[in-house]
Amino acid sequence: MRQPQAGAGTAQGAVIRAAGAAAELDDASGSVAETTPERVDLTYTPSGTTVRVPSGVNLFEAASWNGIAVDSTCGGHGTCRKCKIQVTEGERPPVLPQDERTFSPGQLEAGWRLGCLALARSSLTVDVPPLTTRPKASTVGVGRQVILRPSVQKRYVELEEPTLADQRPDLARLLDAIEDLEPTPELHALRRVGTALRAADYRVTAVVADDRLIDVEEGDTTGRSFGIAVDLGTTTVVATLMDLTTGTPVAVASMLNAQQPFGGDVISRISATMLDPQALPRLRVRAHETLAELAAEVCAEAGVEPREVYDVAIAGNATMVALLLGQDPEPLGVAPFILATHRWPLVPAGEVGLGEAVHPAAKAFLHPALGAYVGGDIVAGIQASGMDRDSRVRLMIDIGTNCEIVLSDGTQLVSTAAPAGPAFEGASIRCGMRAADGAIETVKLLAEWPEPADGDEPLPDPVQLGVIGDVEPRGLCGSGLVDAVAELSRVGLLDSSGRLLDAEAARAVAPALADRLASVGDAGERVFVLHRESPDLPAAESVYLSQRDVRELQFAKAAISTGWTLLLEEVGLEPREVQQVLLAGSFGSYLSPAAAVRIGLVPKLPTLRIVAAGNIAGEGAKMVLLSATERTGADALLEGVRYVELSDRSDFNDRFVDQLAFPST
Amino acid sequence: MRQPQAGAGTAQGAVIRAAGAAAELDDASGSVAETTPERVDLTYTPSGTTVRVPSGVNLFEAASWNGIAVDSTCGGHGTCRKCKIQVTEGERPPVLPQDERTFSPGQLEAGWRLGCLALARSSLTVDVPPLTTRPKASTVGVGRQVILRPSVQKRYVELEEPTLADQRPDLARLLDAIEDLEPTPELHALRRVGTALRAADYRVTAVVADDRLIDVEEGDTTGRSFGIAVDLGTTTVVATLMDLTTGTPVAVASMLNAQQPFGGDVISRISATMLDPQALPRLRVRAHETLAELAAEVCAEAGVEPREVYDVAIAGNATMVALLLGQDPEPLGVAPFILATHRWPLVPAGEVGLGEAVHPAAKAFLHPALGAYVGGDIVAGIQASGMDRDSRVRLMIDIGTNCEIVLSDGTQLVSTAAPAGPAFEGASIRCGMRAADGAIETVKLLAEWPEPADGDEPLPDPVQLGVIGDVEPRGLCGSGLVDAVAELSRVGLLDSSGRLLDAEAARAVAPALADRLASVGDAGERVFVLHRESPDLPAAESVYLSQRDVRELQFAKAAISTGWTLLLEEVGLEPREVQQVLLAGSFGSYLSPAAAVRIGLVPKLPTLRIVAAGNIAGEGAKMVLLSATERTGADALLEGVRYVELSDRSDFNDRFVDQLAFPST
Repeated sequence: MRQPQAGAGTAQGAVIRAAGAAAELDDASGSVAETTPERVDLTYTPSGTTVRVPSGVNLFEAASWNGIAVDSTCGGHGTCRKCKIQVTEGERPPVLPQDERTFSPGQLEAGWRLGCLALARSSLTVDVPPLTTRPKASTVGVGRQVILRPSVQKRYVELEEPTLADQRPDLARLLDAIEDLEPTPELHALRRVGTALRAADYRVTAVVADDRLIDVEEGDTTGRSFGIAVDLGTTTVVATLMDLTTGTPVAVASMLNAQQPFGGDVISRISATMLDPQALPRLRVRAHETLAELAAEVCAEAGVEPREVYDVAIAGNATMVALLLGQDPEPLGVAPFILATHRWPLVPAGEVGLGEAVHPAAKAFLHPALGAYVGGDIVAGIQASGMDRDSRVRLMIDIGTNCEIVLSDGTQLVSTAAPAGPAFEGASIRCGMRAADGAIETVKLLAEWPEPADGDEPLPDPVQLGVIGDVEPRGLCGSGLVDAVAELSRVGLLDSSGRLLDAEAARAVAPALADRLASVGDAGERVFVLHRESPDLPAAESVYLSQRDVRELQFAKAAISTGWTLLLEEVGLEPREVQQVLLAGSFGSYLSPAAAVRIGLVPKLPTLRIVAAGNIAGEGAKMVLLSATERTGADALLEGVRYVELSDRSDFNDRFVDQLAFPST
Repeated sequence: MRQPQAGAGTAQGAVIRAAGAAAELDDASGSVAETTPERVDLTYTPSGTTVRVPSGVNLFEAASWNGIAVDSTCGGHGTCRKCKIQVTEGERPPVLPQDERTFSPGQLEAGWRLGCLALARSSLTVDVPPLTTRPKASTVGVGRQVILRPSVQKRYVELEEPTLADQRPDLARLLDAIEDLEPTPELHALRRVGTALRAADYRVTAVVADDRLIDVEEGDTTGRSFGIAVDLGTTTVVATLMDLTTGTPVAVASMLNAQQPFGGDVISRISATMLDPQALPRLRVRAHETLAELAAEVCAEAGVEPREVYDVAIAGNATMVALLLGQDPEPLGVAPFILATHRWPLVPAGEVGLGEAVHPAAKAFLHPALGAYVGGDIVAGIQASGMDRDSRVRLMIDIGTNCEIVLSDGTQLVSTAAPAGPAFEGASIRCGMRAADGAIETVKLLAEWPEPADGDEPLPDPVQLGVIGDVEPRGLCGSGLVDAVAELSRVGLLDSSGRLLDAEAARAVAPALADRLASVGDAGERVFVLHRESPDLPAAESVYLSQRDVRELQFAKAAISTGWTLLLEEVGLEPREVQQVLLAGSFGSYLSPAAAVRIGLVPKLPTLRIVAAGNIAGEGAKMVLLSATERTGADALLEGVRYVELSDRSDFNDRFVDQLAFPST
């Protein structure tokens, strides 16, 4: 928990200032929260859990978000009347007509309400009865506990056969038996209902996705229900097949995004569509093929039929989503950086290439986007991190060509995107490469020769490299780059301005390493040799770090640290007040926390506070498969997170220059 | 108008009796109205029109249904606040929150209300201000006046370009400009919005169908908006391209339903699907091809691009709709005759074969069905006839293999289906044929030779035939069959039991025609020769009417007259009280009213009261394209029409036998 003496006064000021800043923006976009809502404390008994939520949230959702199971079959839509709770302390929510139909006057007096309709307007104690339908909970994301209540529900029913005296249509007969769900029938289900009823002696399973009746299956199939969660990355795409009856992943597959030939990052793919009108449809097909291949792979691995996969969730950045859906991405790539929409409707699986790979009436949920550079992947990440629902000061940094940064001060969320450039992907680095076999991923430097214990023992190599795949080093991946620069800075071969020392100065500060400094090329660019296959090889043919590489990384880290510095200012906090830094994405997972602090990529904090969060976009996608409430929660984040556009700030360049230097030790 | 002295007391009794009958049925199907609503009179000024509507209808819809134009841009959904009306006499409807936001206290006091929210609970006088947006009205159906307010709306807007200070997504920018429509964006529109805005300098036309934003077009395209109305008949399919901006048809095309090779009537097509699992997909493809061909034809004729056709409406019987959508029709064809559903959702145009023929996001509206044998074609017909909204006693008979009958007593509607068999299609008639070139369509018989004015003048042919196409007669179509039987009955060659007289008796009653009676075949079946190419030809090679043909027609007309007799009993009326008989469908259009009365196919009424209504199913389809209100009206008919199942009645066979005889002259 944040220390009251350190932040309370400042945070209060920040709320007021932030509200003022928001009012200055054109708030017609709907993405700018006009005021930060008050928070209230809800204590749920008998578990004793206390949660802090924005005022106005309903008691059912607040419980579900925090892993407390309340009975429900409709998932909080006010129709099943099962989410009965009792407000035992605090001001009782008003009695609504649905409450009156559900409870006796005595029960209403005693504080009984339908949880999904009762709004938390002040701090309350709420008693939750034991479950009659027992949902399970799953742990996903960064320790998030999610109540298993998927958008997909199956209901087995045994119906009476029609007669001349009871000519109800097949659909009416079925819907009468599942009236609490009140689904809208889809054509596919209407086509199936008559055949299924007659083939299975009027014993069938209704498949309802959201509020849509999508199929009628013969017999009892309630034990089989699956969904596919997709992390649609620019580089790598990961699909996870989830068992929606147990909440567990049953198969995972990943592959490179087949759009790679059109460029490694979003900007080069956007450029491709601007140069060639055929590029957009081609990119779309590549994305579809990628998803279809992964879906087929996970289904085959788990022995699941495509028709048993009723739901799809996709988290991707705004450009990946645009290309997947066949929308021209150009407005995302040029100022003023405009999204087509924050929220996408549920789209038929065929629109994302999964027409044959999943149930014919399945639809895909796409995480909404906050801005052109803070896309659905980040919204999914916020969701998976639980940043929107705890009171700690937390900073999430998703490092890539474009770097997304989200900060929570415990009461509000702000986000921005920083143009980090391709340094971390290795593309603009002389000896850069992807994190594949042969890539240097860790670097440790010894400035001076150790005193030999025994004169015969060979001297250790003063440049100690960790290499992926345990093979001869071939290049430098992003984490190796950060490590190398951090170590050069630590031993003093890089000064705080980022300049490699000259030979003489180098011999003074790091005698063991001085002969690794060399010059290459006609321009005589200064380099530091990391690895040379044989001593005779010229420096230009070695794996090295160049002065220009250092500058690339400096620019990238300056952009990122300018981003979080400005976000901290927005909410009135100091860097040292950050209680946790989440490094997201696969790059973040490999990065050494100490090196990240060393070069100033993250605030100067104890390394234990810096946590690799892994593939949190994919975790967010899993969460919305497991819980319809989380789906609503993802949409609600659009109102809950304020987007700060850096390129619009007049002081951005000043701040950027301030951040170029490496921190002094 | 119904004569008060003739019906008022009886109708009152009927209402009570009908309500009792409804309560006895299992009303879980939702298709049985529990009580017949009261009617109230609304007088609209300044037009002075008085309309009689069920209590509870809103004042906007009541006006629209009756051709009185009230301002509106949202089409009666309570969002545009333009349908301002003033209740000048009668009890004022309660003031709702939306009224308070729209009117001053003084205006509310003076009776101003939003018409679409004000319900008619008692008789009122309502003043309608002159229009600011001027909708047109079209006359369609049986003299129905429909206010032109289609589900498809276009709105031209000029938007401000985005800036870094105004990063609203493209969609939000557009929706802010058309906020009264509040549409939900479809993927197609989201894909188009960015491109259209930038290509057309932020001057675009939003295309909204129902509550869906389906496209964003460059520039001002508000003058171009089309829909296709389809009468999906078992035999013939008719498509009409409607200009939705003017309410006028711009092209019509018709062709035989390409499903013909699978059988001429619904039962033989259902049987085909039961015999061969491949028949259903094949029948579906045939229906799709038929619709696609007609759509291409009307668009080509009118110079309309497929992408300018935003709406489709289809009226067809339950079997045709099932085959079109790929649903197994077997439950429709076997007792207890069960529909999959009364109402179909809006289906993507691709699901009815029009994927390439109309706008990619267009959806098709399918008229709902009352029962397996009272399908969407009949609901469309009721709508086009206006039977649900006038106070006359009207009977509609759609004659075909299956004959649908609807009766209105001015306050309630009842319907049934009678199994007429294939007599009218010509299929089971010895010399039967379709109404094509060479078909005898009228028959006039002279029982006796006229006195010759001049001995040299040749005697007239005592059998006078009207033949389609003015060619040699080749067979007998349905109307010719009815005419022939009616004439034989009139001249006395058929007795009231339907038996052709023997030669001797024939010579006595109709000397000029007696030699036309002959016997054919091994069994010596009695026939009446209508046409013989040469006098030497044996009777078996002539065009004749056989005793068995007469029996076929007798069975058909008995089924039909049993149907309307029972419906009249249901509401407590005598046949003579029927003020209008509408003969629907192409067969009905050709039928001679006198002959229909003569054989007892319709009640014995003055022939002026018997009206050929033409293709009213197609008219109903046009109406729902022209008016979103009519679309709601079509759905409302499901609750407004009570379906009476004949095959469930224990007295059906008795009644049927009673109706077999031909009426005495």
